[in-house]
Amino acid sequence: MRQKTFINPIAWKGGKIRIIDQTRLPIELKYEDCATVSAVWQAIKKLKVRGAPLIGIAGALGFLLGFQQSKARTEAQFLRVAKKLRYRLVSCRPTAVNLSWALSLMHGIVETNRRRPKSAILAALKKEVDRIIHEDIQMCFQMSAHGSKLIKSKDSLLTVCNAGGLATSGYGTALGVFYRAKEEGKKIKVFACETRPLLQGARLTAWELKYNGVAVTLICDNMAADLMRRGEIDAVFVGADRIAANGDFANKIGTYSLAVLARYHRIPFYCVAPFSTFDLKLASGLCIPIEERDKKEVTTLYFKKPIAPEGVDVFNPAFDVTPAKLVTGIITEKGIIRPPFKKNIGALYGPSIKRR
Amino acid sequence: MRQKTFINPIAWKGGKIRIIDQTRLPIELKYEDCATVSAVWQAIKKLKVRGAPLIGIAGALGFLLGFQQSKARTEAQFLRVAKKLRYRLVSCRPTAVNLSWALSLMHGIVETNRRRPKSAILAALKKEVDRIIHEDIQMCFQMSAHGSKLIKSKDSLLTVCNAGGLATSGYGTALGVFYRAKEEGKKIKVFACETRPLLQGARLTAWELKYNGVAVTLICDNMAADLMRRGEIDAVFVGADRIAANGDFANKIGTYSLAVLARYHRIPFYCVAPFSTFDLKLASGLCIPIEERDKKEVTTLYFKKPIAPEGVDVFNPAFDVTPAKLVTGIITEKGIIRPPFKKNIGALYGPSIKRR
Repeated sequence: MRQKTFINPIAWKGGKIRIIDQTRLPIELKYEDCATVSAVWQAIKKLKVRGAPLIGIAGALGFLLGFQQSKARTEAQFLRVAKKLRYRLVSCRPTAVNLSWALSLMHGIVETNRRRPKSAILAALKKEVDRIIHEDIQMCFQMSAHGSKLIKSKDSLLTVCNAGGLATSGYGTALGVFYRAKEEGKKIKVFACETRPLLQGARLTAWELKYNGVAVTLICDNMAADLMRRGEIDAVFVGADRIAANGDFANKIGTYSLAVLARYHRIPFYCVAPFSTFDLKLASGLCIPIEERDKKEVTTLYFKKPIAPEGVDVFNPAFDVTPAKLVTGIITEKGIIRPPFKKNIGALYGPSIKRR
Repeated sequence: MRQKTFINPIAWKGGKIRIIDQTRLPIELKYEDCATVSAVWQAIKKLKVRGAPLIGIAGALGFLLGFQQSKARTEAQFLRVAKKLRYRLVSCRPTAVNLSWALSLMHGIVETNRRRPKSAILAALKKEVDRIIHEDIQMCFQMSAHGSKLIKSKDSLLTVCNAGGLATSGYGTALGVFYRAKEEGKKIKVFACETRPLLQGARLTAWELKYNGVAVTLICDNMAADLMRRGEIDAVFVGADRIAANGDFANKIGTYSLAVLARYHRIPFYCVAPFSTFDLKLASGLCIPIEERDKKEVTTLYFKKPIAPEGVDVFNPAFDVTPAKLVTGIITEKGIIRPPFKKNIGALYGPSIKRR
């Protein structure tokens, strides 16, 4: 199995968590050490660490860090600390399910091992984080292999936000598919939507694709429709923050817009996301909580200067929900799920879900 | 006839042209005097003066200024200077037809009066500019009256770019409709798309609507679809830079995207534009020249800081073309044109067109 080494956006450095401060890209590639749970919480909240799979890993590492630093010595204390850590960390980003998923796994490890000494619990927690990271890398690789089958040489592809190596500990989800296609010798061109307000497309995806040698052209979000009309887009690939049982999914604001535009122009629209992104407790996308963020993200652009009149009202949802009916396929580590999604998601994930 | 006085974005001040430098809004309301044709050319090119109708007026004033400053004394010199001025000024923005329309009128005045003394030609040119400005104000008022009939109280409306008082010498086109609805006592709410890359929606429309007491909420361009899905938008009103004989029209990039999204969500989509925006020589929107602008507009945001990796490829069309089939109606000073557009545009404008 070939596996390219990408810049690693997160790592455990003996009692500290080393992250890339993604808010500084593409100006500088700056690493930062988080030495407390509060620092981890802030790093996730302020989007220094972002991307659904990576948020899950950051949460799990934050849990490990907090447990290590706690003074808990008894079973009751272990359980209290675990519960506190889980609920504290889960609060920073509501939409991506991976965070609560990873934290519930970590919580479960403490519950299972609660009668053992702290050192043994810590070892089990570290093992669980390593497993989550390893699985993430594997899943990225498997998704990319499935997704790449949908790409032909000379295809021109569109993506939004950053569903890349910077959003996972591996290859990335949507961008992983592009990397794989390129490795297989296909000549591809990627259009990256800049992704206002926080410009993850311009700052992270354009940077990451360029860094990895994939031809990338940056556009403003409102230019995608025109490109489609010109016949310049062969397929759209996006990530996901949470997928409901019927295939509806939440992803970065603007995703739904691209899905409608792709349907109008008869362009295939794919969502690329691992198992950990599914939330089968939710019947449809209507149940997914959507984070609304600070209006300053819209009124001041990225570098603090005002671009709108003071005091103007702003609507700033961080995500939108794309209904399954607009989705051509969901690319997972187990294969590509096609409509009818409710039935096919259930069939593919039913047995695994019980494990959770 | 009631007519509200808006901030005047352009004025003739005895041999100089006073403009509002719109690139400084909303940070500051700064006036600037253009004392040479070159300064006018630069002001239009750098978007200090923008908006299809206002560009026409700026072009006409620039022509007047250039003719006044020329050393022409003979018939041959008058004609040579007029031709030179026309072709020099028309070159700065290719998409909006109003510029070439206004310059052809000014050129015509010189041709008609070429045997008269320079002072008489200048007087005739000044009279023509005044007429264009007066007509622009009247047309804005008439369009707003027609358009307002389409708005009910409590409607929530969407617009893009700035088709307001800052884009004309009057009420504005799309925004004029909103002002009129408000004056008629209708409670309306306007969502303004920020309009990347140059943020005319955030900087100008949000500022202008707020200045004139219209409730406005700013959104990023990629949020419009989500608002439509939520049922928050009752109608879309946009301006136009050039309208072809079949009703296809060019407007700020992102307009086409909104038209497709409005159609998908069954929301009426209106274009508001005066006679001077029609270019009946063009059979369809395919013939409209689309200006591509500097990639730095995309890679550096508005205030010069880089937000994308150095050297990244960029696609930056300033406009897109919306096909007539996505348009519910075109609101003109003579009334609302409905499909079939080719027939109905011809019927309404046939006689006037011959005048040109």
